[in-house]
Amino acid sequence: MIRSRDNEKLKLVRKLHERRWRDKLGLFFVEGEDLVKAGLDRGFEQVELLIAGENVEPALLAEVSTLAHPPRVIGVFRKRESAERGGVALALWHVSDPGNVGALVRSADAFGAGVMLSEGCADPFGPKALRAAMGSTFRVPFPDFDLRDAVALVAEGGEPLEALDLGRYSTIVLGSEREGLPDELLERCEARATIPVESVESLNVAMAGTIALYERAVRSRRSRRRR
Amino acid sequence: MIRSRDNEKLKLVRKLHERRWRDKLGLFFVEGEDLVKAGLDRGFEQVELLIAGENVEPALLAEVSTLAHPPRVIGVFRKRESAERGGVALALWHVSDPGNVGALVRSADAFGAGVMLSEGCADPFGPKALRAAMGSTFRVPFPDFDLRDAVALVAEGGEPLEALDLGRYSTIVLGSEREGLPDELLERCEARATIPVESVESLNVAMAGTIALYERAVRSRRSRRRR
Repeated sequence: MIRSRDNEKLKLVRKLHERRWRDKLGLFFVEGEDLVKAGLDRGFEQVELLIAGENVEPALLAEVSTLAHPPRVIGVFRKRESAERGGVALALWHVSDPGNVGALVRSADAFGAGVMLSEGCADPFGPKALRAAMGSTFRVPFPDFDLRDAVALVAEGGEPLEALDLGRYSTIVLGSEREGLPDELLERCEARATIPVESVESLNVAMAGTIALYERAVRSRRSRRRR
Repeated sequence: MIRSRDNEKLKLVRKLHERRWRDKLGLFFVEGEDLVKAGLDRGFEQVELLIAGENVEPALLAEVSTLAHPPRVIGVFRKRESAERGGVALALWHVSDPGNVGALVRSADAFGAGVMLSEGCADPFGPKALRAAMGSTFRVPFPDFDLRDAVALVAEGGEPLEALDLGRYSTIVLGSEREGLPDELLERCEARATIPVESVESLNVAMAGTIALYERAVRSRRSRRRR
């Protein structure tokens, strides 16, 4: 039973609150039984498992937790190498809110897509993003950022999303919450799409990305049926 | 300058943390300049305006705030009578998470829809839902719950969303996060739609509702063009 806050395992979890340590050690931690189970189900290597009242004092586990209601378990997992690009992927450009990154990881999982992150994105392996992704982080591939066959989703001025033949594009590019996409990057995309809305500021990047994944999936089902 | 925590205005804000007081008094409060501005822009009646350092001591304003980083202003507004039903509306059945209710209000605003709430839904005028809705709460109509021309969105077993002629339905019914929709309610709907996904648990109710609003808007644009 761990009874000291100087214990090495607790120190490790505390370090992993910070992105630089997660990047350096290639490790991250998840809080709560559901997320630990999701990691094990997908065969991620579990480096530590801390269980309140079993191998660590509950108050000490609560101290290293990021949650207001501390979890019963915290698991430390090893990251995997970035995946090969399969089919469709979202390319996130400076999406800095961890809740948005987590929500997009979750939607990518729903539609069988990967997620590529530019520098300046929130870390999908940070505590908030992991929580928002609800276990999808363990299932979604994270290939390197790449703009092959890319369509950029822009708030205004693109072709209506439903009018594009989205099935032709394998990368859906989403810009930062505040700035959208820079011109330099837009020029590297093959097309620009806009979701027609009545109030532009009411569609956040996670919603827009989810709609695009849905539309992409509908299109590829339709073209499969035509063949 | 308010210098006592027993001040009536501070007491009012503290009361309005609770739904029963919001319901009883017909008032609610918003935190931060953006939300206060959104309320004024839409002509909501502002009952109180507290400004840190101007008419209230910053520490006292922080005490009645729900935010970790206290806002500079808190505004108390009067609710409006529930609106007439216009065109499309979401009907939320026991959607209990305030973040989901707020996100759906925001998406409804994007697509020009209303939001109808059953009993058991989170209060859209609670602090978390207001924050998630980012000012859309002031723009979206909240008509009474009603299942006219309704299509139910179900996780499994409905017609694929894109195969339905969604333009025929003016109400999109969404169930609770855990239980979905009860049979008794499903029977009162004219159709059932399902968003085809690879992983069902990865699409939360806010994402599903947003996709349905998008698809509904696409359909009605298409049928307008055909006419």
